[in-house]
Parts: sequence; C-alpha cells; structure tokens
Amino acid sequence: MSHDDPIGELVALLSRLPGIGERTATRLAHHVLSADPAYAQALGASLAAVHARVVKCERCANFCGGPLCRICQDTTRDDAVVCVVARVPDLGAIEKSASFRGRYHVLHGLLAPLDGVGPDQLPLDALVRRVEREAIKEVVVATPLSVEGEATALYLAEVLRPRGVRVSRIASGIPHGGELEYADQVTVGRAFEGRREL
Amino acid sequence: MSHDDPIGELVALLSRLPGIGERTATRLAHHVLSADPAYAQALGASLAAVHARVVKCERCANFCGGPLCRICQDTTRDDAVVCVVARVPDLGAIEKSASFRGRYHVLHGLLAPLDGVGPDQLPLDALVRRVEREAIKEVVVATPLSVEGEATALYLAEVLRPRGVRVSRIASGIPHGGELEYADQVTVGRAFEGRREL
Repeated sequence: MSHDDPIGELVALLSRLPGIGERTATRLAHHVLSADPAYAQALGASLAAVHARVVKCERCANFCGGPLCRICQDTTRDDAVVCVVARVPDLGAIEKSASFRGRYHVLHGLLAPLDGVGPDQLPLDALVRRVEREAIKEVVVATPLSVEGEATALYLAEVLRPRGVRVSRIASGIPHGGELEYADQVTVGRAFEGRREL
Repeated sequence: MSHDDPIGELVALLSRLPGIGERTATRLAHHVLSADPAYAQALGASLAAVHARVVKCERCANFCGGPLCRICQDTTRDDAVVCVVARVPDLGAIEKSASFRGRYHVLHGLLAPLDGVGPDQLPLDALVRRVEREAIKEVVVATPLSVEGEATALYLAEVLRPRGVRVSRIASGIPHGGELEYADQVTVGRAFEGRREL
C-alpha cells in the first residue's frame, strides 16, 4: 500500500494516535497536504527525532534535552521535599498549579503485578538512593488515585518510612466546583475520610 | 527553544494542526514518546515525504502516487459524466456515498475574487479541454453550497454550456434526517425551490 497510496499510509499512521479516528486523520492529512510543505517537513523531522533528542534527567527522570532537567537545575527550589509522579504530564499539571516548589521523581509507570510490572521494573532504587544521599525530609506521593497508583503509594511508604523520611499522599475528594450529586461513591467516601476541621 | 526543548517544539508543531489545541498536542507528544520509537520514525518519515510522494492525476488532478489516479485508471467507470469538486476530501465523500460512477475533476480551490482567486488561478482550462476532447455529455458541479462554491458553479455553467455539454448542480435542501425546525432559512428556501413532484 505504501508505494501507491502515500495519503492512505499517512492516514493509517495518524489514526494510531489516541483520540484520532480515521475521519480526523483524513482531515489532518489533507490539511498537511494543502499547507506549506515546510510545515510537513518540520513536523516530520520533529517526530522522527524526538525519541533520540529526549533524554531522562539523571536525577529525577523528567524528560529533558540535557543531563539535568530544568527543575533539577533550578537552585531556588526546595531540596527537602520530593514529589513522586507516575508520568511527566502529571509533573506538568502540578507545575501549572504552582502548588509545589520542591523536586520531583518520575517513575514512568506504576506497580502493576498483573501486567508483570513489579518493583524491579520501576526506578524505585534510584528514589531510595536519593532519599539516602540527599537531604530529603518529605516524599509526597502524587501517583494517580487509581488502584495501581494507590498500590504504588503504599509500597513507597513501606520502603521509605524505615529510612527516616516522612511519606505523604496527595488528598482525594470532591474536585473543585464538583457536585456531590454526581460524584462516585468512592470519591464521596474519600472526601469524608479526609475531612478537616474548619 | 528547539535545542533544549524537543517536546515543546513537537507540541508547538502539533498545535498548528486544525482542531488540535495545546492540551491535545501535549497529550499526543507524550503518547508518541511512550510508544515504540519505530512508530514516531514511521509517522515522521511519512509526513516529511508526503508532499514529494503525492502528485496530482494528469487527467483529473485527484491526489495519487502515479501519473493517473485510481478512478481515472478504472475502465468500468462512465466517461460521459464528469463531477467537478473543490477538494479531494469532497471526492472521497462522494465515493463513499456510491452515488456516482463517472469521472472527476478536482479544482483544488474555488473562485474567490476578494482573495485574488480568479478563473486563471484554477485548472478550469484543463476542464474545458477535457470537455472538448473527451466524450463528455454532462458535467455535475459538486462544489460546496457556499457563496464561493455557487459562484464557481455559475461560472462553469457559463463557460461549458456553449460547448454543447449539459451542466448540472447537486441538489440543495434539508439533509437526511434533518428537522425543518432547525434548518436555516436559506436551506428551507432551497428545499422549496428544488421541490419535485411525487
């Protein structure tokens, strides 16, 4: 197919992106064809090179272009608090909220024994080493509030607490602007469990 | 930015696609990064090469990989009827409907005097030559039902009718399953103008 149907090939490849169906992929392919060829070249080159150009920060495993990421290079941040996230986009969401000024540690995954992902498959050793070597007082576990995220949080607490560091977990409850009526039972239950005195 | 922020560069390029905002572009970039590097390579190469690999059919200007497109190569199609479309996706929509078995002629644009697109900027000469040389009996103008599409249709009728060919226009009216209550006035007006005896 690839030789006599370059548009079909491009549509098939674009359709593999999340949330992009065949219809949208066709629209995108025709947009690219009707736009400046330099744009298709630039996007193509950026995609083809992104895996080679993006490396993981030596300290926290955040994506970056050099040995250390921007956050690890930032001397104004608090070395005493490390936030553990499952994925780089989660780190981005926390940065956007401007609610955290410490360092990060990116796992690039979560414990999932049923899928064969055990503690050895995640960079947990690197986190333990950081806790032992750096002056870390608190580890905030900001993995998702899913089964796997919770299991990973519990495991981290077990491993890190004996090393004299405080391990905390981000709060779970009704989202900002959320209606109790439409919240699921688990979320309502967590909101009650985590209630604070006013 | 491009040297120390390859993800930011990719997000910026993806954001230029229609319907892809910065949020979606970020999600797509991280998906590509977490997927098999071979996929990013294949999509990147396909994008970078698509302008060079896609050529216009010598006869009808449909996109294709060789000198003649699949439809022009198909000997079972009716040479006597040619359907004029503005863009290749319009041709695709007509093919999907399976309501037309003739040939096509793709303009890759519409008359738009205000934007400086006059008859000389569109491949109208090629269409006139086809009408003169091929055994064409009818030209169905399937340009959009917009101001520019209508203007192009009227212009084609003026140019082609003196050459002894029948020029027709696709019908305009209430879409299949459409409610009159929610149709705009022009559409309702056209549905009445184009009414047929039962």
